[in-house]
Amino acid sequence: MYELYYWPTIQGRGEFVRLLLEDAGADYDDVIRRPESEGGGRDALLALLEETGHFAPPILKDGDMVVSQTPLIMDYLGARHGLAPDDAHARREALRLSMLLADFLVEAHDVHHPLAKEFYYEDQRDEALRRAPSFRETRIPKFYGYFEKRIADGGYLVGSSLTHADISLFQVVEGMRYAFPKAMARLEPDTPGVVKLRDEIAARPGIAAYLESDRRIPFNEHGIFRHYPELDG
Amino acid sequence: MYELYYWPTIQGRGEFVRLLLEDAGADYDDVIRRPESEGGGRDALLALLEETGHFAPPILKDGDMVVSQTPLIMDYLGARHGLAPDDAHARREALRLSMLLADFLVEAHDVHHPLAKEFYYEDQRDEALRRAPSFRETRIPKFYGYFEKRIADGGYLVGSSLTHADISLFQVVEGMRYAFPKAMARLEPDTPGVVKLRDEIAARPGIAAYLESDRRIPFNEHGIFRHYPELDG
Repeated sequence: MYELYYWPTIQGRGEFVRLLLEDAGADYDDVIRRPESEGGGRDALLALLEETGHFAPPILKDGDMVVSQTPLIMDYLGARHGLAPDDAHARREALRLSMLLADFLVEAHDVHHPLAKEFYYEDQRDEALRRAPSFRETRIPKFYGYFEKRIADGGYLVGSSLTHADISLFQVVEGMRYAFPKAMARLEPDTPGVVKLRDEIAARPGIAAYLESDRRIPFNEHGIFRHYPELDG
Repeated sequence: MYELYYWPTIQGRGEFVRLLLEDAGADYDDVIRRPESEGGGRDALLALLEETGHFAPPILKDGDMVVSQTPLIMDYLGARHGLAPDDAHARREALRLSMLLADFLVEAHDVHHPLAKEFYYEDQRDEALRRAPSFRETRIPKFYGYFEKRIADGGYLVGSSLTHADISLFQVVEGMRYAFPKAMARLEPDTPGVVKLRDEIAARPGIAAYLESDRRIPFNEHGIFRHYPELDG
């Protein structure tokens, strides 16, 4: 049984790990989402950070093994559940793509929080309005165009079989549709490979069941992907 | 002979790789720094991106093997030059710390570019002035405090032997001293382990010789670490 430690009220970075675990049908305990009376809550996270010396969630515990940094968790779990290539170079490529998607996440977050995580959105809304056009018109097309090109080679981000990086791409597409519905409706027709891969992953039995379940926390304005219509152009 | 592809006029992310190669005494060709007439320059980078399908520099070529994302290059070279642990879990820990340092780099860059890479600093100076206090007072102490705690365990970021993550930490300390001399003069006395490790690495023969050489590009206001006195408090 895996233990996942991540914020209980948002999808955030933890959602990438949840999706992989659900796809694999793996048994996992979403620890912090348990009530405090049952060993969950913020105290469980603080205790884990103290005990393991890790920096921040998401953190995965697999027996004695503790892994953090989302792409590393995806690589670790991917190797255990047939979602990472066997070949060392291809496996590093999948990890690289996962890291690139994580880089994109930072930009998708900072577009609504350009000044500081500690400030409310309302206190950096003017700055967000100045940042958003560059994100929409330059950064999103740059990343999506790159993913499209990668997928064109073999149907997946890395060659011709599904890896954890594709599952991460699915979550990015979902998040971007939530946060920037207008911008993505304009852009997605230019990236049919990305959309097709997204659809394929949404239809995988474990993912489809999960998306229908109440384990999937809805997108909201506390996570990475936030829908502020004024930033959508 | 390794080939490194990175911007020729800044230290940037490529500097982490250069430091490791210099420490190891490895033979490498800093391709883009060669004149265009000798196969260098921007065209060499564009050709490589087209040929390999990688996203952005730094990119390392080792024969047929192509690696990008700085922490992955560090892991790859670290394993070849005695700067990554043999044990799989410890090796992943070194990579994790390298990724965490890369996360910090994004913040150290965005403090002077909170709105967009494409805008000049002067066009986002007011926003940078609003972002800087949170970076100085919350983010730097959080990261440095974490590194200090990790080092306290065994003298290095991962256990009791030097890894590529320590070399990356050295470069972060150098960059932060350049960009935020006042803030770091105040903070560093609280992180003696970080400073001691920085000194140890600076004294390694390969690094010391490199720092004295003209191969080391000076810090400047085009890279990640920029000295704008108004952001230093």
